[in-house]
Amino acid sequence: MRLILVAGTTRTAEIDGITAAGASRELLVHTPSADTEILTYGDTVRAPVTPVSPGGCPTPAVVTRAVRELLGFDVTVVDAGIATPTGAPTVAVGARPGDDIREPDPVRTAPGAFAAARSFGQGLPDDRIVVGETVPGGTTTAMAVLRALGEGPLSATSSSLPENPLGLKRRVVAEAFEASDLNPGQAAHTPELAVRFVGDPVLAVASGVVAGALESGTDVVLGGGTQLLAVAALVRHAGVPTPATLATTPYLAADVPDLGSNAAALDLDLAVADPGFDPSDGGPLAAYTDGVAKEGAGMGGALHLADEAGRLGEVRDATRTVLERVGNDESPASAADDAGRGTEGGS
Amino acid sequence: MRLILVAGTTRTAEIDGITAAGASRELLVHTPSADTEILTYGDTVRAPVTPVSPGGCPTPAVVTRAVRELLGFDVTVVDAGIATPTGAPTVAVGARPGDDIREPDPVRTAPGAFAAARSFGQGLPDDRIVVGETVPGGTTTAMAVLRALGEGPLSATSSSLPENPLGLKRRVVAEAFEASDLNPGQAAHTPELAVRFVGDPVLAVASGVVAGALESGTDVVLGGGTQLLAVAALVRHAGVPTPATLATTPYLAADVPDLGSNAAALDLDLAVADPGFDPSDGGPLAAYTDGVAKEGAGMGGALHLADEAGRLGEVRDATRTVLERVGNDESPASAADDAGRGTEGGS
Repeated sequence: MRLILVAGTTRTAEIDGITAAGASRELLVHTPSADTEILTYGDTVRAPVTPVSPGGCPTPAVVTRAVRELLGFDVTVVDAGIATPTGAPTVAVGARPGDDIREPDPVRTAPGAFAAARSFGQGLPDDRIVVGETVPGGTTTAMAVLRALGEGPLSATSSSLPENPLGLKRRVVAEAFEASDLNPGQAAHTPELAVRFVGDPVLAVASGVVAGALESGTDVVLGGGTQLLAVAALVRHAGVPTPATLATTPYLAADVPDLGSNAAALDLDLAVADPGFDPSDGGPLAAYTDGVAKEGAGMGGALHLADEAGRLGEVRDATRTVLERVGNDESPASAADDAGRGTEGGS
Repeated sequence: MRLILVAGTTRTAEIDGITAAGASRELLVHTPSADTEILTYGDTVRAPVTPVSPGGCPTPAVVTRAVRELLGFDVTVVDAGIATPTGAPTVAVGARPGDDIREPDPVRTAPGAFAAARSFGQGLPDDRIVVGETVPGGTTTAMAVLRALGEGPLSATSSSLPENPLGLKRRVVAEAFEASDLNPGQAAHTPELAVRFVGDPVLAVASGVVAGALESGTDVVLGGGTQLLAVAALVRHAGVPTPATLATTPYLAADVPDLGSNAAALDLDLAVADPGFDPSDGGPLAAYTDGVAKEGAGMGGALHLADEAGRLGEVRDATRTVLERVGNDESPASAADDAGRGTEGGS
């Protein structure tokens, strides 16, 4: 068992109001680096901040790490355009940070990175992998990619904000199609072009890894929410029909009522495991139960593994242990100054 | 516990007769990539060959991997100038492949990579690390670096060849000093310059990691032979006096009679653990007992860990299991066509 975290950036995250409000550009850009370090080492090493949402919700990477400390699975990080130094080891597949999708051709490295990641996925010796993502701003690019593939009906996305900025996301997506002179559905069956023109490098690399792994007979668990749904759509459009599993958190599932049917439409079993974080304990874990930072960094996939191992009940304490180590167990008020989490929860 | 494998290349390995005879340049250059993959995945992923010596001795990376499968420690690969694609995740510290030391200024990235690696080592959250290397041609550059530091008396090196090409190595080292206009001892107390002018990028990165780890209170086991002795010398010349352990194989120790006193001169405890490979079984493991590929890829460090855990007796069977998986259990005759191992054993 190996968890593969695909980590990268898109400058789409810098659009005002599209991702967790209050997080500065300087801090957002460190989130993937910090997530990869927390997952690899159990603490930050080179990254200057531990990511938390403006409401004080710690990055889901601490939950994934906590499960890793319980179960001991291997972790491999693939660099899908990380923009700041990370102390975590990463596999290179030629991806560079993605530009704002309102600019033409924002992810020029997508076709090459998709191909290299596919070949890497084919070569993996594992019987089974879990694939997760960390990319601030990623739900907006996921929405755009689903439309480019003609899978618009699947493109409902969630948000950590009290009001999901869906209107803003739709405007950004519309501008992206205009900037790259693309029409919805025009990239059907050419996933690498959908990602290149309106996506982000994490979608390119994650779909490449998943396509390659499925092609070589590896079982795949997609650990995440709507971004991993977009990954599955890309894999289907790459001509790989093998079923897989979508494992997500109860917080994400509660926010996307159509998730089950959307997953089924892509031949994915849906798995949802509840870590039992207590809304009444007032600590940082309560923020998850409030629907903040619902998913990310493979959290849903990790919870699924803990559930399979019959150890879901130990995740809460294990997460607290990791939180104490990363020094992120302050009150929401003090943590709010630190950083912003921009994947599912914040974008 | 974390094993850190520092992997890279120097074109010094391309000098005729300096490294395991019969290996082509094309294959030698893949050894670090293959070693990192075997250690990470238990098999090659992207690298086209499994490294073996001309005599059929498999890369020591299979032994290190076997111990990892027994004990379950973490592995982190640091890229110190890997020259071909690897599927293993690697930490970047700005190192590039090293040039032939007979050219002036062959490792321009050494000072920057040393500094970045030192900072990385300081940030590691581990209580204890084992540091190993994989770099074909590395014993010649280690000899040159020890002389540049003024530690020439420590610079005895071993070889996998029936006749250690010491004369050739000395000529290469002399040419290196001439090319970079350096005198023996002139780089004392400036380790980054010793490595830059007559060393290789693996020495720069490994000594940076070790210096940083020791400075931040992490226990360090140097897993290797004379190259790790050069790493220790660099660390001392960087002003870091903290004691550490040099853990090597019985094959390397038998080839360097002064190893114990050389280690003591650098404030290193020497640990030697014998995996009990049987010279009479005729299989690939017998090649180690013949003194081929004596050390590399952290093998001595891994054996030391197995010894501490009381599981040294299981290493032989575990190694056979890994060998079967990497498809490298052919007879020496057929394996001889495949590749060449160029670290301690072959350089």
